[in-house]
Amino acid sequence: MDASPLVEPSAHLTPRDEVERRLARLQETLTARGLDAAVIVQNADLFYFSGTVQQSFLYVPVDGPSTLFARRVVERARLESPLADIVALPGVRALPGLVAERYGRLPARIGLELDVLPVTQFRRLEALFPDASFDDVGPAIVRQRAVKSPWEIERIRAAAAIADEVCALLPGLLEEGMTEAELAGRVEAQARRLGHEGVIRMRGFNQEMFYGQLLTGVSGAAATFLDTPLGGTGLSPAVAQGVSFKPIRRGDHIVFDFVAVREGYIADFTRIFALGTLPAPLVRAYDAALRVQDVVRRTARPGVTCGAVWSAALAAAESAGLGAGFMGHGPGRVRFVGHGVGLELDELPVLASSDDELLEGMVFALEPKFVLPGLGAIGIENTFHVTTDGIAALTTAPEHVVELTP
Amino acid sequence: MDASPLVEPSAHLTPRDEVERRLARLQETLTARGLDAAVIVQNADLFYFSGTVQQSFLYVPVDGPSTLFARRVVERARLESPLADIVALPGVRALPGLVAERYGRLPARIGLELDVLPVTQFRRLEALFPDASFDDVGPAIVRQRAVKSPWEIERIRAAAAIADEVCALLPGLLEEGMTEAELAGRVEAQARRLGHEGVIRMRGFNQEMFYGQLLTGVSGAAATFLDTPLGGTGLSPAVAQGVSFKPIRRGDHIVFDFVAVREGYIADFTRIFALGTLPAPLVRAYDAALRVQDVVRRTARPGVTCGAVWSAALAAAESAGLGAGFMGHGPGRVRFVGHGVGLELDELPVLASSDDELLEGMVFALEPKFVLPGLGAIGIENTFHVTTDGIAALTTAPEHVVELTP
Repeated sequence: MDASPLVEPSAHLTPRDEVERRLARLQETLTARGLDAAVIVQNADLFYFSGTVQQSFLYVPVDGPSTLFARRVVERARLESPLADIVALPGVRALPGLVAERYGRLPARIGLELDVLPVTQFRRLEALFPDASFDDVGPAIVRQRAVKSPWEIERIRAAAAIADEVCALLPGLLEEGMTEAELAGRVEAQARRLGHEGVIRMRGFNQEMFYGQLLTGVSGAAATFLDTPLGGTGLSPAVAQGVSFKPIRRGDHIVFDFVAVREGYIADFTRIFALGTLPAPLVRAYDAALRVQDVVRRTARPGVTCGAVWSAALAAAESAGLGAGFMGHGPGRVRFVGHGVGLELDELPVLASSDDELLEGMVFALEPKFVLPGLGAIGIENTFHVTTDGIAALTTAPEHVVELTP
Repeated sequence: MDASPLVEPSAHLTPRDEVERRLARLQETLTARGLDAAVIVQNADLFYFSGTVQQSFLYVPVDGPSTLFARRVVERARLESPLADIVALPGVRALPGLVAERYGRLPARIGLELDVLPVTQFRRLEALFPDASFDDVGPAIVRQRAVKSPWEIERIRAAAAIADEVCALLPGLLEEGMTEAELAGRVEAQARRLGHEGVIRMRGFNQEMFYGQLLTGVSGAAATFLDTPLGGTGLSPAVAQGVSFKPIRRGDHIVFDFVAVREGYIADFTRIFALGTLPAPLVRAYDAALRVQDVVRRTARPGVTCGAVWSAALAAAESAGLGAGFMGHGPGRVRFVGHGVGLELDELPVLASSDDELLEGMVFALEPKFVLPGLGAIGIENTFHVTTDGIAALTTAPEHVVELTP
């Protein structure tokens, strides 16, 4: 490959010790589950465990060194990955032979990402390893990835900085009468200039996201197929979420829910802008959202369950008299107040009714939001990481409603 | 749901006769395969067969009316879909009971989209219908969707118009010294204003795309994991495709490979801009790309095989002495010169070595491109539909290299 030496290598490569620690943790899972190996194939997981995204199979034996078998493109994998063992794979059918050659035998029990692997792909792997049995290591990988290293938290902080910066730029980009789509385009252009990578990975089947949702006025009340409190009408039923052609007028408010991605890592946040004065019910709901956030800030720390956080948030919303619109209204309502972010937007922890405990190093977007029928949506969102004794925000834009005078 | 009456309904709803014809065609497949029903779940297929994208199961019996069982959000499905039978699904486990209630019995043989359905989701359906057997109807749906109706071709023409228009705007957006990322952001902002929907659906596992690739100078020579002739370095190894932070300088050329999406339908095209004079080898390669396009224009028509088109294209590239760099160089090379587009970017037909015949109504992006190591990539791409006796372009921007004088 032409390695394009003229292109500035401005990205961080994943350090070797990061990858080694991640692989060692996966090997603990394999040991505990009695598996001989895992074969990793999904982009986000490939990047997590190898530092590169190629058409490849990452073979992780229960102990000893892993091998990345790369079909397209092995030269690039070697530039990007700290793994020592990167082997050209001439075709998928060569995989078992190369595994046997390198490891002396074929694995009898193989872990796969069955939560994301399509059935057809799975059956191809079954045919390649006809004597093996297969187990699902997807959920274990998701749990592992939920706890971030300090290096990963710095990557998410860099993504958060993009969100903070475009938030500061937004007032200068808005002109009254422009559509939601046009304003979104202007904001997104700034994000791209700052290094937003565009592709937002989600693990859930059929879940899709494009920069988040910039919704204004009543648009915020439209529910969608997404597992999110807000959705928007979208530009057509085909995509059915996000911005519309609705013009932004005096009296509207803007719910700026923005997903930033830098070097694969995601930060998610929401701020509110008002063209004029926000109606009193929305002011009250925004205050309630800030109070929910405060309650969670005081509650969340290592060892506390997600259910305890969710209950505290719900109680705060209900004590503000706004339980019915909390996290969506009617059929669009979701039963969580936050979700993990990392290499995918829909990671653990989910701040919902569950016994899962928060752990130091987890990173989540906390998004207390309200939908008021006829008025639209409002709320706040920040990305936090779980510290030794609490949580700390990675997104840092000012939290007041920004009143604009267009 | 608050149906947001203030939002302009500027999108076309899928007409009832479109959906009825599509469902009837799927029922022919079910009859031929001896299946009692199909259960459709993937977003692009849901939109194709129902006109709406919700968290839902579209139940298509081998004959008689289909039912959309929608969990989130049934009110929106009723606004958007022409289907008469749209039923609220309280939870996934209620599906078999509701099917039995509506159809009098449970299906014994069920078609599923096993090419895209994750194993975990498949096993959930297996558990819901424990006495049923399952067959893969994904490839048949892909073949069906490859042939577009006149209504669909008009949708793709509308997407193509976005590509044509941003292409005309690009020279006014470029400033010498800005990065690829910044220029891409400016172009994308214009596309958003014009109604580009952002989300680009791809069917292939792990395939990802964000607006296409705006590559300049040597960036065009970087190969990626994607099944595309061009890829780009990307902003980091995490995403590893598309624009970089490389500044655009005098002497560079811009390969503007742009994917437009409007109302779910995709058009794909490529044009070339040069900051100054294009080096002679790139001029020769661009001429060769135009000649390949001409050869395909003269060859492609209903009844001609994809293999015949591919062979003619390859022969034209080789007769120009540029066979080695045709459709990529070295490990980044792909063995096709075009791909179907529609609701997904990676549709049929694939213009590669195969006996599949072109059919009237098929739509494909024809993209003869060359990668010259040290110089970058160059080529042209247009989206064509197959007519009664040939092919006709849907993208219509002028095809000459646009020389810019920044």
